[in-house]
Amino acid sequence: MTEKAVVLYSGGLDSTTCMAIARSEGFDPFAISFAYGQRHAVELQKARKSAPRIGAVDHLVVDFDLRRVGGSALTADLEVPKEGVVEGAIPVTYVPARNTIFLSFALGWAEVLGAFDIFIGVNALDYSGYPDCRPEFIAAFEGMANLATRAGVEGSDRYRIHAPLIDMTKAQIIRRGLELGVDYGLTHSCYDPTPEGRACGRCDSCRLRLKGFAEAGVEDPIAYVARDANGTNRTAKR
Amino acid sequence: MTEKAVVLYSGGLDSTTCMAIARSEGFDPFAISFAYGQRHAVELQKARKSAPRIGAVDHLVVDFDLRRVGGSALTADLEVPKEGVVEGAIPVTYVPARNTIFLSFALGWAEVLGAFDIFIGVNALDYSGYPDCRPEFIAAFEGMANLATRAGVEGSDRYRIHAPLIDMTKAQIIRRGLELGVDYGLTHSCYDPTPEGRACGRCDSCRLRLKGFAEAGVEDPIAYVARDANGTNRTAKR
Repeated sequence: MTEKAVVLYSGGLDSTTCMAIARSEGFDPFAISFAYGQRHAVELQKARKSAPRIGAVDHLVVDFDLRRVGGSALTADLEVPKEGVVEGAIPVTYVPARNTIFLSFALGWAEVLGAFDIFIGVNALDYSGYPDCRPEFIAAFEGMANLATRAGVEGSDRYRIHAPLIDMTKAQIIRRGLELGVDYGLTHSCYDPTPEGRACGRCDSCRLRLKGFAEAGVEDPIAYVARDANGTNRTAKR
Repeated sequence: MTEKAVVLYSGGLDSTTCMAIARSEGFDPFAISFAYGQRHAVELQKARKSAPRIGAVDHLVVDFDLRRVGGSALTADLEVPKEGVVEGAIPVTYVPARNTIFLSFALGWAEVLGAFDIFIGVNALDYSGYPDCRPEFIAAFEGMANLATRAGVEGSDRYRIHAPLIDMTKAQIIRRGLELGVDYGLTHSCYDPTPEGRACGRCDSCRLRLKGFAEAGVEDPIAYVARDANGTNRTAKR
């Protein structure tokens, strides 16, 4: 019998690969996405279309508004930085407590579904400097989850937070995804896409993605306005 | 200089007392409430009116829909139980991961405000059997919070989750609130009020509240349809 797993799913490269890994480990993936007032809402439209195509059994989109909370270039009227990743600094695209909030909803849904496995596609190497992408955070969340829920009182199964990408470089993630048959043409990573959904090629997320494809020696199948990060800096084919 | 604190605030007896305690400890309380598809939405209307009257500096209402997640009589079309608290069981009014989700949003707002203190009015004695009202859950959340945020990377102040009611009986909470000048006529506790907001007097929350007032030897100033729990079982005066 396959077991259910809740997979945090943005429609991006990492979470799509993460879902493919969950499936390869024998789980039925239940995808959960969040409409949180992000500027890159095109991400969600693509996620809704892609989730069933990459094998999600069900797809829950939770809607809330982090703009009232504020504090991030991804949800407020701050400029998304285009000058490249600054080593050692937490960038303005950090959304306070975002992964904590996302995992909390995933935990609630898992408890309702009777799932004990939650997958999150964070990685600590190419991770843009976010505190909530570190292994010590994931471990602490898992411990907390097992006290927050019926499992903590009734002594049933334990929740496991899987972060299979956490030690991988972007190039390793892409190679693993290709092995598992992921179509990266269905994924979206840009923080600041054009209204039609074309990636800017210059934000942190695009830079990490393009660098990953370059290192993996594979052509990125999605459309860009420009490709600064790998030096080609051309307009997209479509 | 007073420091900011984020206070989880439902407009109920416990969270109102909790806010009064935060103020008595010298904090400026920033109230956070949640519209999560709860059946007792009248709670929120009252909370909006009461928050400034009980001293909240600001009041943030975060809107999301837990009905899609399901699994609770408070958010789904399940019957709210009226037969009294069952010892040792987790009741159907338990909302999976609710306090985890609430504290996660409070953490995000605290980080934006520059606050390091979060107050939550849970109590582990008269607590209806919820796993996320136990001291071990609160401690685990605090540890996780300090890894989830900038504080965990930059080594600034540490977050503290205050649960000042955790070891108190309902009667002790009411006495403490009255010492601090809380007007319990501004509070609301019922899980299943009439459309006009009158408390049912029979759900777990009403029973615990009425028992608390009876034990404190004080008259509950709010209006009830009926008062089963303290034996008077009369219709309300207003």
